[in-house]
Amino acid sequence: MNDLQPAGLDYATLDFERATRCGFPEVVFGEGKTVPWTLGVVQRLHDAEQTAFVTRVNAEQAAALRLAYPAGVHDVLARTFVLRAGDIGISLGDVLVVTAGTGDLPVAHEAKVTAEVMGANATLIVDVGVAGLHRIIKQVPRLRRADVIIVVAGMDGALPSVVGGLVDCPVVAVPTSIGYGAAFGGVAALLTMLNSCAAGVAVVNIDAGFKAGELAARIIRRLHPR
Amino acid sequence: MNDLQPAGLDYATLDFERATRCGFPEVVFGEGKTVPWTLGVVQRLHDAEQTAFVTRVNAEQAAALRLAYPAGVHDVLARTFVLRAGDIGISLGDVLVVTAGTGDLPVAHEAKVTAEVMGANATLIVDVGVAGLHRIIKQVPRLRRADVIIVVAGMDGALPSVVGGLVDCPVVAVPTSIGYGAAFGGVAALLTMLNSCAAGVAVVNIDAGFKAGELAARIIRRLHPR
Amino acid sequence: MNDLQPAGLDYATLDFERATRCGFPEVVFGEGKTVPWTLGVVQRLHDAEQTAFVTRVNAEQAAALRLAYPAGVHDVLARTFVLRAGDIGISLGDVLVVTAGTGDLPVAHEAKVTAEVMGANATLIVDVGVAGLHRIIKQVPRLRRADVIIVVAGMDGALPSVVGGLVDCPVVAVPTSIGYGAAFGGVAALLTMLNSCAAGVAVVNIDAGFKAGELAARIIRRLHPR
Amino acid sequence: MNDLQPAGLDYATLDFERATRCGFPEVVFGEGKTVPWTLGVVQRLHDAEQTAFVTRVNAEQAAALRLAYPAGVHDVLARTFVLRAGDIGISLGDVLVVTAGTGDLPVAHEAKVTAEVMGANATLIVDVGVAGLHRIIKQVPRLRRADVIIVVAGMDGALPSVVGGLVDCPVVAVPTSIGYGAAFGGVAALLTMLNSCAAGVAVVNIDAGFKAGELAARIIRRLHPR
Amino acid sequence: MNDLQPAGLDYATLDFERATRCGFPEVVFGEGKTVPWTLGVVQRLHDAEQTAFVTRVNAEQAAALRLAYPAGVHDVLARTFVLRAGDIGISLGDVLVVTAGTGDLPVAHEAKVTAEVMGANATLIVDVGVAGLHRIIKQVPRLRRADVIIVVAGMDGALPSVVGGLVDCPVVAVPTSIGYGAAFGGVAALLTMLNSCAAGVAVVNIDAGFKAGELAARIIRRLHPR
Amino acid sequence: MNDLQPAGLDYATLDFERATRCGFPEVVFGEGKTVPWTLGVVQRLHDAEQTAFVTRVNAEQAAALRLAYPAGVHDVLARTFVLRAGDIGISLGDVLVVTAGTGDLPVAHEAKVTAEVMGANATLIVDVGVAGLHRIIKQVPRLRRADVIIVVAGMDGALPSVVGGLVDCPVVAVPTSIGYGAAFGGVAALLTMLNSCAAGVAVVNIDAGFKAGELAARIIRRLHPR
Amino acid sequence: MNDLQPAGLDYATLDFERATRCGFPEVVFGEGKTVPWTLGVVQRLHDAEQTAFVTRVNAEQAAALRLAYPAGVHDVLARTFVLRAGDIGISLGDVLVVTAGTGDLPVAHEAKVTAEVMGANATLIVDVGVAGLHRIIKQVPRLRRADVIIVVAGMDGALPSVVGGLVDCPVVAVPTSIGYGAAFGGVAALLTMLNSCAAGVAVVNIDAGFKAGELAARIIRRLHPR
Amino acid sequence: MNDLQPAGLDYATLDFERATRCGFPEVVFGEGKTVPWTLGVVQRLHDAEQTAFVTRVNAEQAAALRLAYPAGVHDVLARTFVLRAGDIGISLGDVLVVTAGTGDLPVAHEAKVTAEVMGANATLIVDVGVAGLHRIIKQVPRLRRADVIIVVAGMDGALPSVVGGLVDCPVVAVPTSIGYGAAFGGVAALLTMLNSCAAGVAVVNIDAGFKAGELAARIIRRLHPR
Repeated sequence: MNDLQPAGLDYATLDFERATRCGFPEVVFGEGKTVPWTLGVVQRLHDAEQTAFVTRVNAEQAAALRLAYPAGVHDVLARTFVLRAGDIGISLGDVLVVTAGTGDLPVAHEAKVTAEVMGANATLIVDVGVAGLHRIIKQVPRLRRADVIIVVAGMDGALPSVVGGLVDCPVVAVPTSIGYGAAFGGVAALLTMLNSCAAGVAVVNIDAGFKAGELAARIIRRLHPR
Repeated sequence: MNDLQPAGLDYATLDFERATRCGFPEVVFGEGKTVPWTLGVVQRLHDAEQTAFVTRVNAEQAAALRLAYPAGVHDVLARTFVLRAGDIGISLGDVLVVTAGTGDLPVAHEAKVTAEVMGANATLIVDVGVAGLHRIIKQVPRLRRADVIIVVAGMDGALPSVVGGLVDCPVVAVPTSIGYGAAFGGVAALLTMLNSCAAGVAVVNIDAGFKAGELAARIIRRLHPR
Repeated sequence: MNDLQPAGLDYATLDFERATRCGFPEVVFGEGKTVPWTLGVVQRLHDAEQTAFVTRVNAEQAAALRLAYPAGVHDVLARTFVLRAGDIGISLGDVLVVTAGTGDLPVAHEAKVTAEVMGANATLIVDVGVAGLHRIIKQVPRLRRADVIIVVAGMDGALPSVVGGLVDCPVVAVPTSIGYGAAFGGVAALLTMLNSCAAGVAVVNIDAGFKAGELAARIIRRLHPR
Repeated sequence: MNDLQPAGLDYATLDFERATRCGFPEVVFGEGKTVPWTLGVVQRLHDAEQTAFVTRVNAEQAAALRLAYPAGVHDVLARTFVLRAGDIGISLGDVLVVTAGTGDLPVAHEAKVTAEVMGANATLIVDVGVAGLHRIIKQVPRLRRADVIIVVAGMDGALPSVVGGLVDCPVVAVPTSIGYGAAFGGVAALLTMLNSCAAGVAVVNIDAGFKAGELAARIIRRLHPR
Repeated sequence: MNDLQPAGLDYATLDFERATRCGFPEVVFGEGKTVPWTLGVVQRLHDAEQTAFVTRVNAEQAAALRLAYPAGVHDVLARTFVLRAGDIGISLGDVLVVTAGTGDLPVAHEAKVTAEVMGANATLIVDVGVAGLHRIIKQVPRLRRADVIIVVAGMDGALPSVVGGLVDCPVVAVPTSIGYGAAFGGVAALLTMLNSCAAGVAVVNIDAGFKAGELAARIIRRLHPR
Repeated sequence: MNDLQPAGLDYATLDFERATRCGFPEVVFGEGKTVPWTLGVVQRLHDAEQTAFVTRVNAEQAAALRLAYPAGVHDVLARTFVLRAGDIGISLGDVLVVTAGTGDLPVAHEAKVTAEVMGANATLIVDVGVAGLHRIIKQVPRLRRADVIIVVAGMDGALPSVVGGLVDCPVVAVPTSIGYGAAFGGVAALLTMLNSCAAGVAVVNIDAGFKAGELAARIIRRLHPR
Repeated sequence: MNDLQPAGLDYATLDFERATRCGFPEVVFGEGKTVPWTLGVVQRLHDAEQTAFVTRVNAEQAAALRLAYPAGVHDVLARTFVLRAGDIGISLGDVLVVTAGTGDLPVAHEAKVTAEVMGANATLIVDVGVAGLHRIIKQVPRLRRADVIIVVAGMDGALPSVVGGLVDCPVVAVPTSIGYGAAFGGVAALLTMLNSCAAGVAVVNIDAGFKAGELAARIIRRLHPR
Repeated sequence: MNDLQPAGLDYATLDFERATRCGFPEVVFGEGKTVPWTLGVVQRLHDAEQTAFVTRVNAEQAAALRLAYPAGVHDVLARTFVLRAGDIGISLGDVLVVTAGTGDLPVAHEAKVTAEVMGANATLIVDVGVAGLHRIIKQVPRLRRADVIIVVAGMDGALPSVVGGLVDCPVVAVPTSIGYGAAFGGVAALLTMLNSCAAGVAVVNIDAGFKAGELAARIIRRLHPR
């Protein structure tokens, strides 16, 4: 490794100015990292007094992180680990996370935890897919109060089209890999959402609960600058 | 051409027993046929006293057919030409054709004309896509009276998932090539429909109004055997 | 979780009116559900005196369900679990499930069990693919007696095109993921079926025995209203 | 056509409550509509005293609309036609539309016009793609003042990843069909944007300037409720 | 252009030994060639006393070739041009070209003309697709006499699977781009054929009548060495 | 199971006339069959005094088959099991199986074993891919003596294009799933082979050594009728 | 348009430092630009005394450019327009452009012209595809003298694999859209080249003669720094 | 096996002249090879006094190789094994390997090791993706000193577009399979790189660190002929 590496690790170059530029420190993507790499970058963020937020932690990484940082919080369903720096401010805004089915819960949790870690208030409504339309219709008053709605759906991915037509706030659609056969691991839901006949819907990657939560938090921070 | 060709044309082998086996004579697919070929097969069906039904007729084929058979009916929107053989029986059953948008109309018309030519009663409801959900909800009593519902939708193709969850009759979903970008010429709608979270939905090829109409007529004939 | 959740579980919102609207209670999709979630939704359906029908149960879910509900029926090949509510009525109609090969059996069984659970009479004919054409031709008289035919095929998915041209009843085609290489997990068979040169064929998702069975039952219920 | 059609046209069911629910009246998608259909729906919106906004107008539709409604505004580059109802309020917020190249201009214009029609203030920065990185870096102070940034890019679609890492506001990425070969009509840019290594980026359909503009306006309306 | 070009043209390097190595001179692929280029390579082959066989000729190329070489034969349907060198020997063997539909005729003609030009005896049977199964069954005795069968089919591409199971000779399957929607320009038929449940079937490119004809001629030449 | 099942098993309908029609008995595809199913169909073929040939046997199936039929031959590399009926005739013809790399060996062995079981003489040449062109050029005299050449290649799948241009016999190309990344499990090689710039090349499914061997045997049987 | 636009056009932001950073001024991509836009950017480059190099010029753009800048050079086959600034230095190095077929010539010319405009010496060898292997083998001594070889091929795209194994210099492979059916507009050739079994081969976009030429010039400039 | 096999193994035909033709001996691709095959080809290269370089070794192969050749070097991260023949010359040139993220390290190491084994000097810069743009900008002086830059990136694959616009040397882009959802195992990054809006970028297969390293070494050897 050469002496040009700014952040002193031979497997990572940490971006300590991310919080200043983008409103939140660099987030650690757990997938594909060894346990020592994961511990190393969390340690560096911690040393720099920045909140360390790890997504997609597997069991082994989580065990090592919990041992090293007992103050951190591991969410099994969301597959996240959070080690806070400094006081936690009041959560603001109203992010509503809605899922079409039960199987979409892990992704929805990742979105909710992300929005919360980044300072937003987030609520979850589960399993209100379009096959039983009265379920989402009952929620319309609640939907209309939200600042941002994150809709998480696999299979046909039809729920965001319905929600987008019921509200006037931005809708962030998250396709999930729930389904089989021609669901193609979330591609069907992704295409449905990109082609939503309702306006007001933007889409993030398949299973990208994190991306939806982060985007929602960006919108909330615009609404409630601190 | 050799002497083995059973139906005496060197470009087609007509299947005159189709009506006996499948309930309706062989239907002529206009696409890719020259005008002489199209006229030739219609003539042979006519000579055999079978109804000649041509789908996907282009302007040139239609003009030639109308000139040759003034008794035939050309539907411009549905791109069909029908030359009836014998008396027309009473249309039976209740096939409802529903479209998500205005652009889906040509395909919906092809479905409606096909079902009617094959003896079914067919009605059209237009432009009740899920982005304005009250439009389809207003139609629920009408939907529940139908024997078969054909749902025609492009873009996100979400309407069949909603309809399938509102009724107990079979739903035939027809994806259309309406849309742009990641609609991929109807692939997005096709995948949505194959992954419908509502049960009771089967799918035909993109823009295949004919196939949906024929299938609906098969179901109606089972309900009302003559 | 918030107080808006209508059905009182924080991972599911049960749709208790599904039977009224669609003719059969909500069916539980086992894939992607934890054992507690699976038990929870079955319990809620059971408490509401509705038949609980679970598809795609894995070994672990099945063991837990059998222990909790000894009266339930687990079909290993079809991967289904059924816990009936109330008396079972007489099965009506004639649904014929036909497979192209031996490997298509699990999907065919799922279709058959589903149709039966939903009140239809279902029969199975196995391994009559088009490579040995006499096998399906021998069955023609039997095929012609059916009210609905479900054709299950992987690899080239050619059987529905042949069956569709031999009968006048609706044909529901189910592509399976049987095959290798350019079968692409069922995509080849799916495309074949969508492009069937025979009319009267509608298609459901790859390996979706359940969807075919449910659709067949909808048609049977139209023929034999109770 | 049947008597159930709520909005009195046999080719469209207008959704007059859209403005109430979603903050702006139903927008007319010009593609695939005949000239009479286009004129018809504009007339109905106009009669209902709602702003008629038509996107993807072709030359023929535009000529007919301009003749019928001289007060309307046709933007050739954006392919839009706007016929305002009532007074135009003050435009609020700060939507920045940024393009990677010159060829992305029509889509960017559609986004800008849409945001403006829907009440937002929109500014355009053109041709600052990542191959000449200093161009976007020079704009950083301007980028940081924006409430929402719409980034429009074809080919490699790399610009949103760079912008997302420079700002803390939401970024809406629009892939365009500019490019050739393995650009696959915008698919390459779409995938790049969905996989953005920078957070804060959501994506709309290929060439969907309208969707990006509408979403931006939804965010602005949250920031500046009237 | 440099002096290394062996065959003296600056746009082509003719392979004059092809007949020795592969049994037939180099064939000229018309698509993408200008008229002068097409004339140039035909002239060079003619000068070398080799048969010039051009496939995929367009109208302009054909007109120029017919003017320059009145002895050549232009087949409009097959889009071929043949300028024979030397005496034509007796055609041998029995190549049977079978099509599923009428629209497959141009590709079938290209196969037939190619096999004939290369010395094989070729016969055509048209429009015997599997939707009317009796048509192909009637041909079984004829099929069983053939040395090689070329099966040309679009849409579902199911015919080769049926033919492969009826005979013991090699079957060459040619998918065509006939069809619409999910036929994807011949991809559906191509995949069906690659996944044929009958053995004895090999596949060539979509619409590649030439390739099938050439392969059949290679087999015939093995059977009847001169 | 119903009484219509011709071959008396409830999971298979054996096609005992296959040898008469196609020259060899029905071959058993091991993949996706349980051990009892595999044993059952082999037993039925054996009882009918037909050669039982099983392809794609896994370790468990192979162990059970070897125990039940010690006279059978299990080829581990080719993943085949053969239980001969009657005397083995003399192998005829000259099938040459050529591989581009070492990793293509299992597929090549399946092709070789299949051709041999079906009565052809087969020889193997290994690892003569185009990156070291002298290797295949050294084999030219041997290639030119063959009646049929099977070329097995993964990765770029370029070898059949080279071989097709060197010989005048039919070439059967088998793409393999060897490779990584954009090899897409054999799709790259499959497309290369379908687009071979050399004529005389037909293609079978990815990894379909069996199909190539069977086709080669069909050609050999034409050359050497018994 | 706003006052932030650095280069003073409202449709382009010229990157005048590109020559300093990358060794050659910004190149103008003609596709998707109007004639006024094309003229505008060429004028700005000319005013800045930089060479203006336009690729993918259509007939209309070319006519306007030739009229405005008679000193410029329009290459019809390569679809390029060059307006030189300053003296032209001596061309250095030895870039060899090799095509598999005649149809690949336009792309090969674009590569050759690009390399030459950027200061490299470039030579063309045409139509030496692998179906007639002796053609490329005859060129081996010439190939071995080159500093960089650009191999342009459509259809099976097999030539770079062969060339890569014959030389020790870098090989840049350019897939072209020549071919039909499963060539998928160049995708087959692209995949072949990415999976080349020979090392030393890197790939550029389909039909991207420009990219190959530019890359070759970068290598030549390293070899011959001025 | 037959007597034509030049290199005396029945599973491989070694190309001992590769070093003479291409500058480095044949490299052994470990994937899909059994342990005996791997040992066998290494032994043959060793016997021929050529450097044996094995890529993609798995744990089992590596253990066997280390036991058999203690002088060999096994790099766990790069998954390579090298057994040198003769003295190691001085490494020349300046190959810079740059990664976008930490997960790209294994592929980057394979590139670095390959370049080094083949005689080039290689340096690594890690985790400087475009989401934190200052990281790559800080490296600009270092980038500008390089002879060749290899850029390794997964997810959006945007880094090569940025690097290509900052330097004048050739850039070899390596897409990696790092990412999830619509990253499609590296396809997204591959397409981004093929469509790079910066010139000077060529691409190799997904995860093909070896190919990039080999190409870089070819360029270095041109610069520094020995």
